[in-house]
Amino acid sequence: MNSPAMLTDMYEYTMLDAALQDGTANRRCVFEVFTRHLPTGRRYGIAAGLGRILEYLPHFKPSEDDIAFLVDRHVISKTTAQWLENFQFTGTIRAYPEGEAFFANSPIVQVEGTFAECTLLETLILSVLNFDCAVASAASRMTSAAGGRPCMDMGGRRTNEYAAIAAARASIVGGFQGTANLAAAQAYNLPCIGTAAHAFTLLHDSERDAFVSQINALGVGTTLLTDTYSIEDAITTAVEVAGTELGGIRIDSGDLASLAQQARKQLDALGATSTTITVTNDLDEYAIAALATAPVDSYGVGTQLVTGSGQPTCAMVYKLVEREGSDGRMHPVAKRSFGKRTDGWRKQALRSYRYGLAQGELVLCGSADDLAKWEPSEEYGEVRDMLICAVDHGDIDTSLTTTDALFAARDHHWKSLQDLPVTALSLSQGDQAIPTEVLNISE
Amino acid sequence: MNSPAMLTDMYEYTMLDAALQDGTANRRCVFEVFTRHLPTGRRYGIAAGLGRILEYLPHFKPSEDDIAFLVDRHVISKTTAQWLENFQFTGTIRAYPEGEAFFANSPIVQVEGTFAECTLLETLILSVLNFDCAVASAASRMTSAAGGRPCMDMGGRRTNEYAAIAAARASIVGGFQGTANLAAAQAYNLPCIGTAAHAFTLLHDSERDAFVSQINALGVGTTLLTDTYSIEDAITTAVEVAGTELGGIRIDSGDLASLAQQARKQLDALGATSTTITVTNDLDEYAIAALATAPVDSYGVGTQLVTGSGQPTCAMVYKLVEREGSDGRMHPVAKRSFGKRTDGWRKQALRSYRYGLAQGELVLCGSADDLAKWEPSEEYGEVRDMLICAVDHGDIDTSLTTTDALFAARDHHWKSLQDLPVTALSLSQGDQAIPTEVLNISE
Repeated sequence: MNSPAMLTDMYEYTMLDAALQDGTANRRCVFEVFTRHLPTGRRYGIAAGLGRILEYLPHFKPSEDDIAFLVDRHVISKTTAQWLENFQFTGTIRAYPEGEAFFANSPIVQVEGTFAECTLLETLILSVLNFDCAVASAASRMTSAAGGRPCMDMGGRRTNEYAAIAAARASIVGGFQGTANLAAAQAYNLPCIGTAAHAFTLLHDSERDAFVSQINALGVGTTLLTDTYSIEDAITTAVEVAGTELGGIRIDSGDLASLAQQARKQLDALGATSTTITVTNDLDEYAIAALATAPVDSYGVGTQLVTGSGQPTCAMVYKLVEREGSDGRMHPVAKRSFGKRTDGWRKQALRSYRYGLAQGELVLCGSADDLAKWEPSEEYGEVRDMLICAVDHGDIDTSLTTTDALFAARDHHWKSLQDLPVTALSLSQGDQAIPTEVLNISE
Repeated sequence: MNSPAMLTDMYEYTMLDAALQDGTANRRCVFEVFTRHLPTGRRYGIAAGLGRILEYLPHFKPSEDDIAFLVDRHVISKTTAQWLENFQFTGTIRAYPEGEAFFANSPIVQVEGTFAECTLLETLILSVLNFDCAVASAASRMTSAAGGRPCMDMGGRRTNEYAAIAAARASIVGGFQGTANLAAAQAYNLPCIGTAAHAFTLLHDSERDAFVSQINALGVGTTLLTDTYSIEDAITTAVEVAGTELGGIRIDSGDLASLAQQARKQLDALGATSTTITVTNDLDEYAIAALATAPVDSYGVGTQLVTGSGQPTCAMVYKLVEREGSDGRMHPVAKRSFGKRTDGWRKQALRSYRYGLAQGELVLCGSADDLAKWEPSEEYGEVRDMLICAVDHGDIDTSLTTTDALFAARDHHWKSLQDLPVTALSLSQGDQAIPTEVLNISE
């Protein structure tokens, strides 16, 4: 398995090498992660992945073998190889907490340190955020659509095997209740769920044999898969075998709304009134919303969760916005590339509220001094600072990497949505829920 | 890092546990991986990921800690825990070779063994194939559109950090020439490429300083990023600094066709006639095709490569098609779920050719005996057997996991495309390039 320090693009190391040689590697820098726009029609995004970045950080150092590889491939010089032997990130990272709603130009992560240490982190930070935020944002739309009904991640098989673990974690941030993925359950101590595959029924000489076997192994509280042959026959058999205490049934095909109605009626008629109905057939937020009035107890979501429901990446970029000059002072920097301009200076992100309801995202650009002195005028109502300090001069806030923090992020996600105008929860295409104002206060 | 045996859904283990208890775990089974349909409008898919599955296979065994976790979470009983301590896959895996074109219902992987050993592999096999085939399929469309011009993977930052490695590998299968991703270059001994980020220019007091630094570190053969400020000024500076032997320039924004034209004229006028032009701004196969007449030398592709160009997963499923009954004989099995029916019996996939051109995909379903006896009638022309044996009763063909095999897969990919009707390479929406015929020969 690779060191996290190799989960990156080559040019981070060639830039490091060149900067060490020309003396700019130690210039103080501020890099920021943001997206220029939400995916078309989306009202908000959900920040996720910070905890995973913090988990990687202490291990972000190329091994001896990695360094030998880099030298051998002429990516770095021997001087840089020596420098890397002692590498440790000693900078500061501020970020939107996981579960927070974000918008276009929200500086969801801000990395401050030397050019050398900040540039090495670029690719890994972007990989984590682009994927995790995509999944959490989709998850959030699905859980909103589901109302109080639990949503479960069953998507691991539809994405890369390690992405599956990250997806399970990000889905929790976006309001999911559990995952089918064992590695994720193990890594993050998450509730793990599962029923059975059609293969299990087909393996047996009869559906009854399969149900008996599953109940013998897992008890009557288990969930039986009932759509291998006839759903009606399967439910009859299931209740015969398990009794009315049967935990649940799962339907994985067909018109879920009408099938759930029929199944509920049949279960109730058989006395299995507390047996739950889980549905799992290519669900997305729209399908979930359409099932609102169907007697469904929980949703198992696969493909559309792990692929961000049509938006598998978040277009997050990592841009240098401020750096030390030869005069030893910090200067704003910005590229002018067509359609990809950036705003110089570090950002301070504030969310303004009136009567507890979010009104807008105010992104101030300015020198550290000017930002410290800035006072919001009354027009902004109450303002909340969006960035928390996750790493302070190399000191990682490890409380942000725990399972408790993950569930706290889910709670924060609900609170963050609650504070937005109600149109934020609309699934139809529209503008972002609150506007972003970018304000340069230094010049 | 988790054992590969945990990169899976919980239900694989609960099914194993139940089957061990009821005595069906050792029934011989045949599982098959296929997709019911190509993504809308796609003409073909490209098989990729088999080598990665084979790499995982010897390590696919839960560790002591994993087993303790599974027992602790009541996923498995102590009997199953003991059984897992000695687990080793001893079955047979046949598959479409990497780089092969596939279609709806092509059985791209066939796993034969006991229910116990085959079911445990389901999730991991699907994760690998769903992601890797999605990337290879997109890569293939891009490299076809690029004609002979090299395409390079720069997408690692747009997907999960480990998915990035798999994407780099799969892009090679689909015809790419190299990757920016160091971990992938290291793991698979791939050509690694890179230029510089805008941050590197912004870090310096002037663009000239940045170019001088990069050339000092990497030589004049390097590729300079020229769109931080004015492209025209940057090219002038680049040639002043590097001389006419400058390796290349990269343009990452704006209208790439016209900018490449202008850049080429300017470079030629400055005498830098061999300096190459790389473009990298959110390219997909359509953008690449549109640049066919522009003086572009290579394409750096990011987001659209690693997200499968709109199709981030392949809808591959893993289905039990044949299993031993209580009579000790093999029986076909198929579920009848609405819209998700399967065909029983193991498959033999043949591609039929006339005058060297592929005519159709013939998927025979039948008992092993009947398949062995079957002879194609003349109407099928010449037929080629699509499945190769990758694992023979537990014995892994490790020659399929080497870097040589990866580049051979790329060659095979070109050959496979060449044999298809020319409409296969059309980027417009259409039917699959050749039809799939599913033929049950046993009954």
